[in-house]
Amino acid sequence: MRIDIISLFPEMFTGPLGHSILKRAQSRGLISVQVTNPRDFTYDKHHIVDDCPFGGGSGMVMKPDPIFRAVESVVSASSASRKRIILMCPSGQVFDQAKARELAGYEQLIFVCGHYEGIDARIREHVVHEAISIGDYVLTGGELPAMVITDAVARMIPGVLGADDGAQQDSFYNGLLEYPQYTRPREFNGWEVPEILLSGDHAKIEKWRQKESLKATLERRPDLMDKVELSSQDYKLLEEIKSEQAGG
Amino acid sequence: MRIDIISLFPEMFTGPLGHSILKRAQSRGLISVQVTNPRDFTYDKHHIVDDCPFGGGSGMVMKPDPIFRAVESVVSASSASRKRIILMCPSGQVFDQAKARELAGYEQLIFVCGHYEGIDARIREHVVHEAISIGDYVLTGGELPAMVITDAVARMIPGVLGADDGAQQDSFYNGLLEYPQYTRPREFNGWEVPEILLSGDHAKIEKWRQKESLKATLERRPDLMDKVELSSQDYKLLEEIKSEQAGG
Repeated sequence: MRIDIISLFPEMFTGPLGHSILKRAQSRGLISVQVTNPRDFTYDKHHIVDDCPFGGGSGMVMKPDPIFRAVESVVSASSASRKRIILMCPSGQVFDQAKARELAGYEQLIFVCGHYEGIDARIREHVVHEAISIGDYVLTGGELPAMVITDAVARMIPGVLGADDGAQQDSFYNGLLEYPQYTRPREFNGWEVPEILLSGDHAKIEKWRQKESLKATLERRPDLMDKVELSSQDYKLLEEIKSEQAGG
Repeated sequence: MRIDIISLFPEMFTGPLGHSILKRAQSRGLISVQVTNPRDFTYDKHHIVDDCPFGGGSGMVMKPDPIFRAVESVVSASSASRKRIILMCPSGQVFDQAKARELAGYEQLIFVCGHYEGIDARIREHVVHEAISIGDYVLTGGELPAMVITDAVARMIPGVLGADDGAQQDSFYNGLLEYPQYTRPREFNGWEVPEILLSGDHAKIEKWRQKESLKATLERRPDLMDKVELSSQDYKLLEEIKSEQAGG
């Protein structure tokens, strides 16, 4: 997959893209990430990329033309047939794991990052396929959201995670929150690892973990329960949890 | 405000923290951000920070003791009285603008970043005050979430945004999505700026913007409407929108 990021701050990406799984995915040739600066697509002497908003108001708005040309250049630089141009925008559709899976099916993703007060609305109306937000909060620019989506999408591309990376157990892969994990030491600061994890009884451990997953989801994110497909085993565990809570 | 980030990948932060508003806030002395590596708090020869999970399973779990010591060291390094220790975790409370405002009231924030399969659950149970997630998706580590929260919180600290940064008009500040912004050129690629913004009639422009804000929120994020306090003017605009849509 080819990922293009259109941003006025290319240097922001060096750290986050140069580490961990994203670095490995790039060095294995599974993804390639390029950052393109709209400032390189200005033809005036001062390379101006922003201007005052029409109708008045504080803040600066990013001009449409340099962004349009930057997008055109990266679109035509790839022969990929399945391309998706996405605006990073707090008023876009809220990103989630299902969206990450969907985006992982494209051959080229182009993320357009706003900054300052935002981007001239004609980019959203005519240039991009969709606008995405990573959550209900305001950030300085689209750069961090583009990194977040790149990370989440890259993990879904076959071969990026090794067999040991355990993506299948991650939160949200089955719609439930993850069960708690423990490692050595067995006792630390007086705090102990749950006995059952030391028992060696794999069937019991499996059941305990599924139950903890259900319990965590019920307690912390009951809104997620509606979207999960539960097995008959899950329903039995939910009964157990309810009667324990009623008894306790 | 002092922000401490506990992370195995300090170099990831250089780009994002060294630009734009975060850079300015640091150089003005309004916030200071330090990254502390739990690896520096290991006492074994190989500086081991992770280990296999108790009870089996793939992936590695971050050991509790180096993280605990790293947190202790940054807690004791500051005399701040209002401190908050926060675990970055996909199963935590979902971050939003109200949370950003709340966190901006602390004198020291300490973000603990997991990586690999996660962090030994005793850190969540005994060491941190709360766990926060930036959204319902899986990322490789807590580093990007810590950057996102740092950015969103820093913007809420008095003095960080200049008078011209227009934070008050941003999406979510009043609970509604932002109205579209336009700048020069007036016509680009055949796409024109809405006539009204060129009219010079400020009262009309103000009303148009508020109406566009309401329209965008109704169309794209109807779930947000329940949480907004609407004025009598807003109710009138909503009536207009409804009758336009019914007529169109």
